[in-house]
Amino acid sequence: MDPELNLSTPTGIRDWHSEAASTKRVVENKLANLFSSWGYEEVITGTIEYEDVIGRGLNEEEKSQLYRFFGREGEAFTLRPDMTTPIARFVASQLTGVPLPLRLFYTGNVFRHEKPQAGRYREFFQAGIELIGTDTGRADAEVIILASEALRTLGVEDFKIGVGQVQLLDSFLEITCLPEKTKNLLKQSIADKDYVTVNSIIEGASLVEEEKDLLNGLSLVQSGEEFFERLAGKSLPGPITIHLERLRDVYDSLAAAGLMDNVFIDLGITRDFEYYTGIVFEVYSPALGFPICGGGRYNNLFGRFGFPCPATGFALGIERILLVLKRVGKLPSSNSKQLLVYGKDFKKLLSAAAGLRSQGFAVEIDLDGKSREELEKYARAAGMELLEVPAEEE
Amino acid sequence: MDPELNLSTPTGIRDWHSEAASTKRVVENKLANLFSSWGYEEVITGTIEYEDVIGRGLNEEEKSQLYRFFGREGEAFTLRPDMTTPIARFVASQLTGVPLPLRLFYTGNVFRHEKPQAGRYREFFQAGIELIGTDTGRADAEVIILASEALRTLGVEDFKIGVGQVQLLDSFLEITCLPEKTKNLLKQSIADKDYVTVNSIIEGASLVEEEKDLLNGLSLVQSGEEFFERLAGKSLPGPITIHLERLRDVYDSLAAAGLMDNVFIDLGITRDFEYYTGIVFEVYSPALGFPICGGGRYNNLFGRFGFPCPATGFALGIERILLVLKRVGKLPSSNSKQLLVYGKDFKKLLSAAAGLRSQGFAVEIDLDGKSREELEKYARAAGMELLEVPAEEE
Repeated sequence: MDPELNLSTPTGIRDWHSEAASTKRVVENKLANLFSSWGYEEVITGTIEYEDVIGRGLNEEEKSQLYRFFGREGEAFTLRPDMTTPIARFVASQLTGVPLPLRLFYTGNVFRHEKPQAGRYREFFQAGIELIGTDTGRADAEVIILASEALRTLGVEDFKIGVGQVQLLDSFLEITCLPEKTKNLLKQSIADKDYVTVNSIIEGASLVEEEKDLLNGLSLVQSGEEFFERLAGKSLPGPITIHLERLRDVYDSLAAAGLMDNVFIDLGITRDFEYYTGIVFEVYSPALGFPICGGGRYNNLFGRFGFPCPATGFALGIERILLVLKRVGKLPSSNSKQLLVYGKDFKKLLSAAAGLRSQGFAVEIDLDGKSREELEKYARAAGMELLEVPAEEE
Repeated sequence: MDPELNLSTPTGIRDWHSEAASTKRVVENKLANLFSSWGYEEVITGTIEYEDVIGRGLNEEEKSQLYRFFGREGEAFTLRPDMTTPIARFVASQLTGVPLPLRLFYTGNVFRHEKPQAGRYREFFQAGIELIGTDTGRADAEVIILASEALRTLGVEDFKIGVGQVQLLDSFLEITCLPEKTKNLLKQSIADKDYVTVNSIIEGASLVEEEKDLLNGLSLVQSGEEFFERLAGKSLPGPITIHLERLRDVYDSLAAAGLMDNVFIDLGITRDFEYYTGIVFEVYSPALGFPICGGGRYNNLFGRFGFPCPATGFALGIERILLVLKRVGKLPSSNSKQLLVYGKDFKKLLSAAAGLRSQGFAVEIDLDGKSREELEKYARAAGMELLEVPAEEE
């Protein structure tokens, strides 16, 4: 072969084949069926978007990861970096008249120009939902419950759900009167679960001991029981109370859904996209070092598209869930037996194959008039069984 | 709303929602199941390709329709304009060691910067197969039979298949000793079915009457019976005979598959991509003014990727098949009944909804504590039935 011949794909772009591709289809279809059964309707947005349109949903770092290019009339195009922003654009342009809430789901590929890392692709697949037009604790809970149902539907029973609220930590930090820089360091340390730094910052702050204890306590990843126990009887400023009540409401709904043992509270959860405004969550499997699924409330995004409207949702990483399924031995497998039929009479082969297919077999027809030896070799390599179809007796 | 707010998608890029999206999924899954049952394995290639890699499969016009852009290290990228070329690249780079024939299928989106026309998109969807590593009439026939099975699986019974052979017309034209320009005009006129021009070119050629009759006859779209009848007893040059024998072989196999009434011979069939080398075909429905499906043999494409290997295949236009299904009243419909459950006790709502979903209903839960009047309005608009779930009696 010509050594100069380039057959590679661009960095971070991969091909799927055979088991990987069919497993992906099975997983996506199971998710699509689940989401449909919860009243969510599918949406597929175009792969190419105007950059200035999609840019409305992104912060500077997210913008820096966009695949950008120019159209033939000089238009600034981009490949979608997530599905939530295109869906906001779509809903704001096409569905402003429909009764709310609106439930939408998707499965699709997104593009982010991230640093190449093990297991990280620049084109990758997500499945997810958006619940648009309702701002209640039940809505926050439905989204989290549906995320956990998604995992169970795929056979993953062992998972944890970290639940946070993006404004709550800010509200607590306001009490501390710490300088902005220190606040940011504290937030980052809580997100990083670097409790040594968290502790030393809080110790150095001019707070009474009880406040220090409270803040230290709230920085921890802990069960809902523990979290709300710490706050029992505390008198807290209005904004904190409102956010806490919502978190409590969501937690109670998750407990009602039987998820008490799966859920923990983690105020340090920060999500990739900057549009989150309320309850956020991430789902973890012990089989994987990063979240399989994440989402939360984003009440301001639709407004940026001229359709102010609360919303919440999540996205599940298809590559990640496939990794988890593989590691926990739950990859769906095709159970159709493979046959290779051969014989001299093509008409008989066609009808034999059709009959076998209708019984659930996957059937290949020998097209080359291969010898018995060649047929056996081919069938063995592909894990197929051989079946001769005799020609009509004369 | 801000009148300056741009919410549009780029020209030729569309969104799919609700029925359209779910129908597309159903159709693609039916096709995937069919292709699997014939022993084809799914492949999903990356959306972004190096332009010089994909360019190997394209002629100048095809290249002119590419979406092109530069990567951050100056790489020349493109969005795939078809699936056959990326699959050739994939097979040549990854699967050269597998036993042949190799059967692959795909469903996916492709990108072509065509002039915007009614019903034409610049991002559109295809499903198709590639049968790699075999160059027999049975292989040509399998591909055409599978295309017709694809239509039947989707509920389309009324269709015609035009079968041609891209070298055959050239071989005949060589006998005429016409100038190159006239040959090309004649080929174009045959492709356009402009028989007046065809006739006048042939009449003006220096051929004996019998040759003129033959050429005139072969230019027509006609049944296989008629076509081969015209040639019966004729003594023809070697290359023509070889191509004719293959066409005859394929035709006989199609007849054996019961497709005699669907098939006609049309030597004027020219396919979009220039890589075709042998038997080509197109599938038509009376419900649509352009082919739903097309394909054929392309024995030289893999060689351009360093892996010389015969192949054949087809691509089915998803947008087109959905149009046909709509027009012939065969769009698959979701048959799950929609319910909206409401009540004070969230736990009871969750469990009632779960029970109903397991019985096949699609169930939404009221998350807002809407009034009965609001619930009725919402349910009516969405075509749902309302169901109250009473709270536990105290």
